[in-house]
Amino acid sequence: MDRPYVAVIGAGQATPEQERVAERVGALLAEAGAVLVSGGRGGVMLASCRGAYERGGTTVGLLPGADRAEGNPFLTVALPTGMGELRNGLVARTADGLIAVGGGWGTLSEIGFAMRLGRPLAAVGSWTVSGPEAGLSYPTVETAEAAVSLVLRQLS
Amino acid sequence: MDRPYVAVIGAGQATPEQERVAERVGALLAEAGAVLVSGGRGGVMLASCRGAYERGGTTVGLLPGADRAEGNPFLTVALPTGMGELRNGLVARTADGLIAVGGGWGTLSEIGFAMRLGRPLAAVGSWTVSGPEAGLSYPTVETAEAAVSLVLRQLS
Amino acid sequence: MDRPYVAVIGAGQATPEQERVAERVGALLAEAGAVLVSGGRGGVMLASCRGAYERGGTTVGLLPGADRAEGNPFLTVALPTGMGELRNGLVARTADGLIAVGGGWGTLSEIGFAMRLGRPLAAVGSWTVSGPEAGLSYPTVETAEAAVSLVLRQLS
Amino acid sequence: MDRPYVAVIGAGQATPEQERVAERVGALLAEAGAVLVSGGRGGVMLASCRGAYERGGTTVGLLPGADRAEGNPFLTVALPTGMGELRNGLVARTADGLIAVGGGWGTLSEIGFAMRLGRPLAAVGSWTVSGPEAGLSYPTVETAEAAVSLVLRQLS
Repeated sequence: MDRPYVAVIGAGQATPEQERVAERVGALLAEAGAVLVSGGRGGVMLASCRGAYERGGTTVGLLPGADRAEGNPFLTVALPTGMGELRNGLVARTADGLIAVGGGWGTLSEIGFAMRLGRPLAAVGSWTVSGPEAGLSYPTVETAEAAVSLVLRQLS
Repeated sequence: MDRPYVAVIGAGQATPEQERVAERVGALLAEAGAVLVSGGRGGVMLASCRGAYERGGTTVGLLPGADRAEGNPFLTVALPTGMGELRNGLVARTADGLIAVGGGWGTLSEIGFAMRLGRPLAAVGSWTVSGPEAGLSYPTVETAEAAVSLVLRQLS
Repeated sequence: MDRPYVAVIGAGQATPEQERVAERVGALLAEAGAVLVSGGRGGVMLASCRGAYERGGTTVGLLPGADRAEGNPFLTVALPTGMGELRNGLVARTADGLIAVGGGWGTLSEIGFAMRLGRPLAAVGSWTVSGPEAGLSYPTVETAEAAVSLVLRQLS
Repeated sequence: MDRPYVAVIGAGQATPEQERVAERVGALLAEAGAVLVSGGRGGVMLASCRGAYERGGTTVGLLPGADRAEGNPFLTVALPTGMGELRNGLVARTADGLIAVGGGWGTLSEIGFAMRLGRPLAAVGSWTVSGPEAGLSYPTVETAEAAVSLVLRQLS
């Protein structure tokens, strides 16, 4: 894949440590030439976009509301979908792989979508889940470096 | 709420026990006068619709594809959305409460959406999840009766 | 087709004559055993639903907002999509045929969708359009009877 | 508005003259610093993207299918929505203004959406429409220059 699209998913309210990881994920994605997709708002979304944007990366925000000004300041392209939380499915759909950092219920919906669609996914300090049958899982890693490396390897 | 809308979510491939629970959930919802919303296909979706339909309940199927014939035979209303898996968000959005029976990754996406939207949710033999911070959970119950009772009580 | 789904499209603010036609369309659809799909709100949408509902027909409302209470009182099933005007595409997508009565810009978007999807469509006192090349047209009729007859004939 | 987003809408099969106009529209939008939004495929979409891309403009393609490779080669960002023709609504929703060049039924749906949302719109050799009441219209112009100038003026 020439230029992979990787979504960084996580909550709009994040801890300083989650923001630090997200910013590093964004920076590494930009350095690898990936396009960063996100929900385009604050917290993990903003931090990852900042990390990518400041290194010249391309960042896409799929906003839930109808107002482009909702987007964070580090978006190359800000798209107000007006679809509310349904845009979470669009984030997973339009990305080739995903990295979850922390996250709330919206992030869990994106994880479900991503796995349903067979997208490579890595989680850092995010949800752990246990399905009704064996074998339903995704990898948990400790660092931004491990997450980016794991996802990009599967997309190359 | 006059007539609550309750989604029954779960996999298109289900075990006999999951189908038995789902059918009972459907029957109880119909007896309570609720409208049953689902993804409209097989497995847990079909079993719950059958349970409701045979007791005169109203069942709505939000189908992923563009062909109404994809729907199971127990739908009062079958709507081919053509939105693919994005229709999962629509299932959660259009229901007042949700009951998960077993389920795969698509079900997890619906659980995430439902909780993000603050919908009452009960799970029977479904996903258990652990969030990045404390307090992110939904109730797990053992029987169809407990699930329906728990959700309808919060909608009354 | 056992039970065709026909959308009645038109503006939320309608003239008494448009409402009269829409109500008659709804009544005829119910008598023919069709399911009536609409945007679920006022004006032409409400009048057509009333016509169908009072004759025991099934009526489905795909609402733009997130609140079921937005729906008119003549809906068998009211689905708040939370997708805003994007739900117009869903109205065309989920119907087998469409009947336009009067209408504003939203109705024009639904006409475009319906024709793009190859759905049979009849218009009563609605938009007339002229495309950039020849042959892009849909039939205009004078009465509710002619519209219902024209669409149902193509769906049988 | 710092950097307006303008959609160029039109058919995937276009005449040489329509492609010439579309390419010029794209070039003018890029020179004005606008972001070009489109359905991301061939014909008018491709020609407008080429015009913008070759002048260093940013081009966004909202693709109907699930495969990024459907996009034309002149997209800064290609997003496979998997929503089918429903993505037409997203094109109108995410743009601040729109320019129609020629076009088929999908273009008409986008025109309806755009006008419903109150977006500035200019049409070159595209649909002309006549609504059920007076005053429902948008401007028709003769040249790419006039279209771009008309839309950008309303967004400044």
